Amino acid sequence: MADFVIPDLRKMKLPADLKKLDSKQCELLCSEIRQILIDTVSKNGGHLASNLGTVELTLAIHRVFESPKDKIVWDVGHQSYTHKILTGRLERFDTIRKENGLSGFCRPDESVHDAFISGHSSNSVSAALGIATALKLSGSKRYTVAVLGDGAFTGGLVYEGLNNAGKSETNLVIILNHNEMSISKNVGSIAKYLSTLRTKESYHKTKNVVEKALDKTPLVGKPLIRAVKASKKAVKNVMLNSTMFEDLGFAFIGPLDGHDLEALERGLYAAKALCKPVVVHVNTVKGKGYAPAEENPGEYHGIGSFEIATGNPDVVLPDSYSSVFGKELLDLANKDRRITAVTAAMKYGTGLQYFAKALPDRFFDVGIAEEHAVTFCAGLASMGMIPVFAVYSSFLQRAYDQLIHDLSICGTHTVLCVDRAGIVGEDGETHQGIFDIPFLTSIPNTTIYSPSCYEELRLCLKEAVSSKRGITAVRYPKGRDNSLFEKTDLNTDHTLHSSGSRILVVCYGRLYENVLKAAEILNNEGIVFDVLKLVKVFPIEQELLDTVSGYDTALFFEECYKYGSIAEKYASVCKNVHSTAIEGFVKHGSVNDLLHECGLSPERIADKIREHANG
Amino acid sequence: MADFVIPDLRKMKLPADLKKLDSKQCELLCSEIRQILIDTVSKNGGHLASNLGTVELTLAIHRVFESPKDKIVWDVGHQSYTHKILTGRLERFDTIRKENGLSGFCRPDESVHDAFISGHSSNSVSAALGIATALKLSGSKRYTVAVLGDGAFTGGLVYEGLNNAGKSETNLVIILNHNEMSISKNVGSIAKYLSTLRTKESYHKTKNVVEKALDKTPLVGKPLIRAVKASKKAVKNVMLNSTMFEDLGFAFIGPLDGHDLEALERGLYAAKALCKPVVVHVNTVKGKGYAPAEENPGEYHGIGSFEIATGNPDVVLPDSYSSVFGKELLDLANKDRRITAVTAAMKYGTGLQYFAKALPDRFFDVGIAEEHAVTFCAGLASMGMIPVFAVYSSFLQRAYDQLIHDLSICGTHTVLCVDRAGIVGEDGETHQGIFDIPFLTSIPNTTIYSPSCYEELRLCLKEAVSSKRGITAVRYPKGRDNSLFEKTDLNTDHTLHSSGSRILVVCYGRLYENVLKAAEILNNEGIVFDVLKLVKVFPIEQELLDTVSGYDTALFFEECYKYGSIAEKYASVCKNVHSTAIEGFVKHGSVNDLLHECGLSPERIADKIREHANG
Repeated sequence: MADFVIPDLRKMKLPADLKKLDSKQCELLCSEIRQILIDTVSKNGGHLASNLGTVELTLAIHRVFESPKDKIVWDVGHQSYTHKILTGRLERFDTIRKENGLSGFCRPDESVHDAFISGHSSNSVSAALGIATALKLSGSKRYTVAVLGDGAFTGGLVYEGLNNAGKSETNLVIILNHNEMSISKNVGSIAKYLSTLRTKESYHKTKNVVEKALDKTPLVGKPLIRAVKASKKAVKNVMLNSTMFEDLGFAFIGPLDGHDLEALERGLYAAKALCKPVVVHVNTVKGKGYAPAEENPGEYHGIGSFEIATGNPDVVLPDSYSSVFGKELLDLANKDRRITAVTAAMKYGTGLQYFAKALPDRFFDVGIAEEHAVTFCAGLASMGMIPVFAVYSSFLQRAYDQLIHDLSICGTHTVLCVDRAGIVGEDGETHQGIFDIPFLTSIPNTTIYSPSCYEELRLCLKEAVSSKRGITAVRYPKGRDNSLFEKTDLNTDHTLHSSGSRILVVCYGRLYENVLKAAEILNNEGIVFDVLKLVKVFPIEQELLDTVSGYDTALFFEECYKYGSIAEKYASVCKNVHSTAIEGFVKHGSVNDLLHECGLSPERIADKIREHANG
Repeated sequence: MADFVIPDLRKMKLPADLKKLDSKQCELLCSEIRQILIDTVSKNGGHLASNLGTVELTLAIHRVFESPKDKIVWDVGHQSYTHKILTGRLERFDTIRKENGLSGFCRPDESVHDAFISGHSSNSVSAALGIATALKLSGSKRYTVAVLGDGAFTGGLVYEGLNNAGKSETNLVIILNHNEMSISKNVGSIAKYLSTLRTKESYHKTKNVVEKALDKTPLVGKPLIRAVKASKKAVKNVMLNSTMFEDLGFAFIGPLDGHDLEALERGLYAAKALCKPVVVHVNTVKGKGYAPAEENPGEYHGIGSFEIATGNPDVVLPDSYSSVFGKELLDLANKDRRITAVTAAMKYGTGLQYFAKALPDRFFDVGIAEEHAVTFCAGLASMGMIPVFAVYSSFLQRAYDQLIHDLSICGTHTVLCVDRAGIVGEDGETHQGIFDIPFLTSIPNTTIYSPSCYEELRLCLKEAVSSKRGITAVRYPKGRDNSLFEKTDLNTDHTLHSSGSRILVVCYGRLYENVLKAAEILNNEGIVFDVLKLVKVFPIEQELLDTVSGYDTALFFEECYKYGSIAEKYASVCKNVHSTAIEGFVKHGSVNDLLHECGLSPERIADKIREHANG
């Protein structure tokens, strides 16, 4: 330990050497990590507040457990940056969220220390139980640690996991990272319940579970065992009892101060010593150590780049598809009392903050609970309301059965506003919105609109709300409308630009702009083609099938997985259809780079058309 | 009331007249209903034990609440037969589960008293909250009642619903029908927790919530208010406190004896009087009143027809695709310790009872928790295990996001044994397995096998288990293999029967037998055609595309929704493909009748082929 006073992450063997640090060195390390986090996220964008809140917790986990022999599963991965830094990824940390760089979430193919994939909320307990069960079946005594925020506790999958884990007789440690914030302010009874735990100082029952645990504690390194013994009484004081988790079969430790490294390590050693499923409740402060983020953690949840000095984040884009949707919906709702708005923990992300403020009685943030959101909408709709569920494409996947069972069979009219449809960019595979068209078209009684600009979004939303038809989805991309095309003749069905060419290009959504740019490229080469811009992309009218069939060649360009794409449906009927859809999962990178890779940039679109024009 | 001593359901105005009955008449009525249930289910098949358990509860609900002004939402609908009888559907009750007859579940299009659709578990709280919220927004004081079994409490959607409902300030009454049985024996910590509630006689805290409730009780009809007042003390004794539900923000009443009508009514009146979200815990005996079902409720959960005298049920078919799968998997698992089996509350239904008995350490019944099942499998697989999740097609829909996020992105190898694939018959729209091919093919890294007989199922299962490929699904229908075709040349890829015809018929699974029968019909007419039997139906090899393209006409027959079907994929590449897939939801009826309606019986297949042969 005398080797270095100021620990140098670049020279340490990670994570093993972390166990050698003394408390002063740990403190220095935490400060350094916070600076790296702020510097990097200010350049690359990403999740800041959640990561600043878990610096000490992550260090404690890596000092108490032994990754990768012990398995650490991060829920969502919003909070795993310190884990990346402490497991040998500091050198590449400046590439995070950039194409071919580190992922912003956990990925087993990125590091052996990422025990499971993350990105979508609430899966960590189930995944960790699978891992812990495999360890148990193999005779291993190793630990599996799941780290999840209180936000993840609003998703039903967590309960399915807890229900099975409580009695599993595995060495499973579930760390509840309680920062009283999920993505926006946490909602529901669970949040309130957890907050009760967070603040209560004592409890009607006292158990000596920690003492027992300490009696069983194996040799854990001299400094620690000393610290633990010296503070036995202190530990006992922080041991509270949680009837809910104990009802579910868990031991319970906490709440612990998530920024007190010693307290954290004591609690985690106690959890280890129990050798049974245990919930450790840790209180953290989101944004810890960076004043702007501490003061306004919501704005620093997921952000683009920002100035460190001013702390000016760009998360709330007043000019985006989301905000245009949010404002338009409020306008419509002011005229029609039947309209209600539902979000699954994405009030700001979906642009519903305007609605929430103006019409709080008709606004429902249900937590990270997409299944509930859809079934709740079905209940509202069954009574004649017009529910509008604004949801990211990749998260709507979570409610597939509810769409079929609770909405589609009865033909119940509900509007889905599918935000982040198509390529989203830096968040990578788990967040790309490329499956909504395949799975929504596989559900009867579904209509899908895909506007190509703000004004079309407004038109589509109006039509979707006033429609009487089953599931009506309006899908639009993340971010701004950058289209330059002339906004004449806009409608909610389709527009055909015909110049008598034998080649037809078919597209929808923001790719229309790319197709027009491809036309500019090709017109200079003397290549002309017709363009069919779809707005109502599904179901497909016979008239459009006839139109497409009338061409020698119809080239489709889509931000959509190839199986289940719109092109596939046309191609199955029209013999002249050629599709450019997405072949599989799409990694992270900038939207434009990824579109180019998928053959959907203006240049690649032009290439494809040129090939057919010259063939 | 003097009009009739023995109540005659056929002459009563239902459900209103139920409120006029005295206790003796209620008792007679319950006996009569039980006899109707036993008679009808013995002829039509259906759910017996759960329905026998809820006769008094249903009567109490309809006497205390006023349907359809108050809304009653039944979870799953396994227990709604008495509700159907008491809401004017007795005359048609003998048609239940038959084509064009009453549905075996709740359907708003069948009766105004069915407030919401049922069939899939755990949606009732969310749907009821939507309905209750709509009532509240409209200024109505009416009640919404959700009735769910303890089995439904193993599904995460219930918690998402409870988390949002607890603080909703709606007139929502959630009745927990506790019979300590879901479909098979209930699993997990929740089950144990609820059982604790079920049996405890008193509690450390006593609240006078019932007394307060009674003080607020409006006029509820003389006999009842008298009964309530006289037994105030008794009511207080049955009032227990549930920390878990109270933690979630609910008032709690119970446990009540679910076969004591007076106790039930007192409890429900108290729940009404609270005018806030309340959980009412009711203990019932599954199979109540029919000895064979009481003794063995698992066998009388969902059954075919049976003899009333002997009570001989046919639920456990020793000769079925499910049992062949179950026995084969056990054989494989005896040779390979990595194989683990997972079911979501369908141990018997999926044929896993053999595995569960022989290898209990590697068998996991996770409750009605398909999302957890998939993510748990992903955790197991990430450690080198070979998890096999046996699940009904229509319930696998519930884990669509987990298949994408937790399995597919990392290419994790897990075997899905998709039982009840294709038309299932009497259970209707909610249970037909017609979406698994559309949604599984929309997920990258997926392979799908569809065997046409028992021996092919064994071959496919062996290959799926030994495969290294991502998601490997083996799908097979409900019930027996009735195929008569010669079992030579079986394999896991495809078989082409070529006689030089220009017409090719393509099929997979049990429809192969129907196609062969169609060939018999047509051969007599001098019409011959080639047959391609697919076993590995997806992904599609170029060789098969070339084969299919080589014919003038390729006719596909599939038990699959048309958008996302295998034919659609071939058609999008081959210009000669004509598909017979399923156009939308399929109602209930016998499998053969429904196949005929969908154009998939031997006769309809012959018609289609004839049309092309003569065209």
